[in-house]
Amino acid sequence: MNLNDTITAISTALTESAISVIRISGADAFAVTEKIFFKKTHPLNKAHRMSKKTFSTIEVNSHTIHFGYIYDGEELIDEVLISIFKKPNSYTGEDIVEISSHGGVLNTRKILSLILSKGVRHAEPGEFTKRAFLNGRLDLSQAEAVADLIKSKTEDAHKSSIAQLEGSLSEFISGVRKDLVNVISLVELELDFAEEDIEFVKKEELRKKIIELKEKFLQIISTYIAGKVIRDGINLVIAGRPNSGKSSLFNFLLSSDRAIVSNIPGTTRDYIQENIVINGILFNLIDTAGLRFSYDELETEGVRRTYERIKEADLILYLIDSTGSEEEIKESLDYYKKEFNPEKSILCFSKSDLSPNHPIIQSFNHSIIQSLSISIYQLSTIENLKNKMTEKFRYSVNLDKKGLLVLTNTRHKICLEKIIESLEKSIESIDKGMSGEFISLDLRNAIQSLGEITGEFTNDEILNHIFENFCIGK
Amino acid sequence: MNLNDTITAISTALTESAISVIRISGADAFAVTEKIFFKKTHPLNKAHRMSKKTFSTIEVNSHTIHFGYIYDGEELIDEVLISIFKKPNSYTGEDIVEISSHGGVLNTRKILSLILSKGVRHAEPGEFTKRAFLNGRLDLSQAEAVADLIKSKTEDAHKSSIAQLEGSLSEFISGVRKDLVNVISLVELELDFAEEDIEFVKKEELRKKIIELKEKFLQIISTYIAGKVIRDGINLVIAGRPNSGKSSLFNFLLSSDRAIVSNIPGTTRDYIQENIVINGILFNLIDTAGLRFSYDELETEGVRRTYERIKEADLILYLIDSTGSEEEIKESLDYYKKEFNPEKSILCFSKSDLSPNHPIIQSFNHSIIQSLSISIYQLSTIENLKNKMTEKFRYSVNLDKKGLLVLTNTRHKICLEKIIESLEKSIESIDKGMSGEFISLDLRNAIQSLGEITGEFTNDEILNHIFENFCIGK
Repeated sequence: MNLNDTITAISTALTESAISVIRISGADAFAVTEKIFFKKTHPLNKAHRMSKKTFSTIEVNSHTIHFGYIYDGEELIDEVLISIFKKPNSYTGEDIVEISSHGGVLNTRKILSLILSKGVRHAEPGEFTKRAFLNGRLDLSQAEAVADLIKSKTEDAHKSSIAQLEGSLSEFISGVRKDLVNVISLVELELDFAEEDIEFVKKEELRKKIIELKEKFLQIISTYIAGKVIRDGINLVIAGRPNSGKSSLFNFLLSSDRAIVSNIPGTTRDYIQENIVINGILFNLIDTAGLRFSYDELETEGVRRTYERIKEADLILYLIDSTGSEEEIKESLDYYKKEFNPEKSILCFSKSDLSPNHPIIQSFNHSIIQSLSISIYQLSTIENLKNKMTEKFRYSVNLDKKGLLVLTNTRHKICLEKIIESLEKSIESIDKGMSGEFISLDLRNAIQSLGEITGEFTNDEILNHIFENFCIGK
Repeated sequence: MNLNDTITAISTALTESAISVIRISGADAFAVTEKIFFKKTHPLNKAHRMSKKTFSTIEVNSHTIHFGYIYDGEELIDEVLISIFKKPNSYTGEDIVEISSHGGVLNTRKILSLILSKGVRHAEPGEFTKRAFLNGRLDLSQAEAVADLIKSKTEDAHKSSIAQLEGSLSEFISGVRKDLVNVISLVELELDFAEEDIEFVKKEELRKKIIELKEKFLQIISTYIAGKVIRDGINLVIAGRPNSGKSSLFNFLLSSDRAIVSNIPGTTRDYIQENIVINGILFNLIDTAGLRFSYDELETEGVRRTYERIKEADLILYLIDSTGSEEEIKESLDYYKKEFNPEKSILCFSKSDLSPNHPIIQSFNHSIIQSLSISIYQLSTIENLKNKMTEKFRYSVNLDKKGLLVLTNTRHKICLEKIIESLEKSIESIDKGMSGEFISLDLRNAIQSLGEITGEFTNDEILNHIFENFCIGK
């Protein structure tokens, strides 16, 4: 990681729009700007064209905006505003220039190329935020919250990411860190006086303190399932025999014609995936090929992929065509009972508008497996289905509670689980009457894992993995 | 047009990106900002959360940037930077606040909604630029150049729009306007002294001056065809009998699989349109349904639409399958000769890799109609075709000549044609020995038309038409 060079990127989406923003950060940001950005002098004689006048960043304050022109040699590229941020008071902690240009694709690209031609390197995704982290402008959990905030698709995701950006997780960690350090000093103080055989803290008391700490961590980990739902949404697969109405339901939920629908069994081959928010919860809706044996190679491949999606699903809507024959319905029902977990799936009898009183469905309704009758032509049945879909995840925390902390990030969860492990080891050491050195080592491992969350201790591989999922220009 | 209210819009493209910019312009821009934007006070005790602190725009200078937080009541929406522009030194000439937020879709929308909830109106497309025009920050031809600059897809389009934005057309107009006013004052001076029968300027001299002016306008109008090519590109239609390789060529030129290709005649129904830059010239490439009689209703509709596109085309590539039978080739050739203008079309024998020496093509090559043999499997034949396509438009002006003015806008061309008409009328009046009053009236009409270009004289309808094609937020 080279922190000495200067980086640049377009920070807005590169499509026709009113404004584009190009960012430059690093030691040469100002020098490069002075090579390409000019003011104009108003001529005495109005008939004359205005002429270029050099711009000096030294003469202006940080956090000021200047109107002027980007020139590539004598060629005028654009009229722009530039924003000057002087280190350390900038996003990255380095000197930053933000060029706000007209939002065309070509002129924005031309400005970027011009900057690159002056020896500035194109930034990696997330590299501005990475530098902000490396320069101590925010900790790692806050940097991760930046990416989560941008990707937020639901109110809850927005709330939890902005809380994390504001340091809700960092605050928790700095609190428990203090507790951990206190416990360690108790243990280590005793070590210092080991020869004198003074016992500063009763084993029992130490044990209690560690268990209390462990409880705190367990409580946070327990929010992770809700957090994952909030951040990543629920993988919802629509499955069933061919022609059971999967694509029709998929389109209806999306209010679009995304999937091709026909009454030819096997219409859907590739699975199709779209996001949708239902009752405030994000679903990754996946429409699949109908489950059946087929001689069609393309379709067989489709069925294979359906099984893969089913394995990874958080929730499955299993559709049975209620207009089918008794035999067909029975066969599909048996398949469902055999292959699917009712805890992770919802059984739906589809096309219910066409078969109000099918005997086999009637009799099934008395079984212990819950089912729904649905039809896209009966709005209330779909509302019913939506509520069923979301109620399974409504244990998701109420984020309106102020200051509530929800764990949304798998990396953080893994770190916290390592902490639990270390704490349990330390309790074991106490119970076995082992020397304080061992207890201290376990507790220091816990601190290490804690520091990995905030980036106090970390390595390049983890950093790269975190920042490669960022937007370009962030 | 209400200039008293305050408007807002998202000025960047609304997709996940590093930064979004939300603009507010108008009398209430600062008051609204103070309701939703807060600084934070650093607490004395670091363990306490920071608290909201109101922000006052009066206390800060124009063209300054401030870090802080957008709050909807007690709910934190985002960390942002705001840029303050105090009137009249802003894009619109009004008070402007630009909020630079994290580039997520949800948080950006939430900020926009919050501003709208404070009584700010959502801006129409181009309304910021319209206000800039109405407040005299730029003239109408410059405002039009802003939209052209954003839409530029070629170097030439970029150069001509930035020149126009910098006032190249405005400068020309202010020059010829002065000349026109001089001529008018000569005529009208004479009118004042009409009773005394003094002739200040010889009719012949007046006539000569007007003709000189007319020449200047004609010269500018003559750049329009080149200008239109530069700004809007060339409508290029690929036509021919079914299965002559139109979609294959289309895809090959685009380097993509945009059109579905099969050897089933009639594969393409809807015409497909894509932009591509070849040798610096923008082409709107249009792939069409093959021209033939069909019993398929969908295909017949496709053929009807092909004829429409052909009518509007600037250039047509007419493809004949060189692997066809002699009869088929002859029939398609006859059709080409009958229906197409060789000046506006290029005749291509396609699939030339498969039929190197077809006798009918051999013999045709001696005809006066030029033709090319092409194959997407023989790169040099396609290069040849590309050069042929662009050479037809290479009379387009060399924009590197400094200060060169190219007319790109149809509205401007119509205004200039009205000027020519008025000038011709005035010459007629002189030749008929009519009173100076008539000559003066004609010349004043010319000034009126000139003022329509810069927006000195204009009406709401024209303004609305111009600005409705702008981006939202510009």
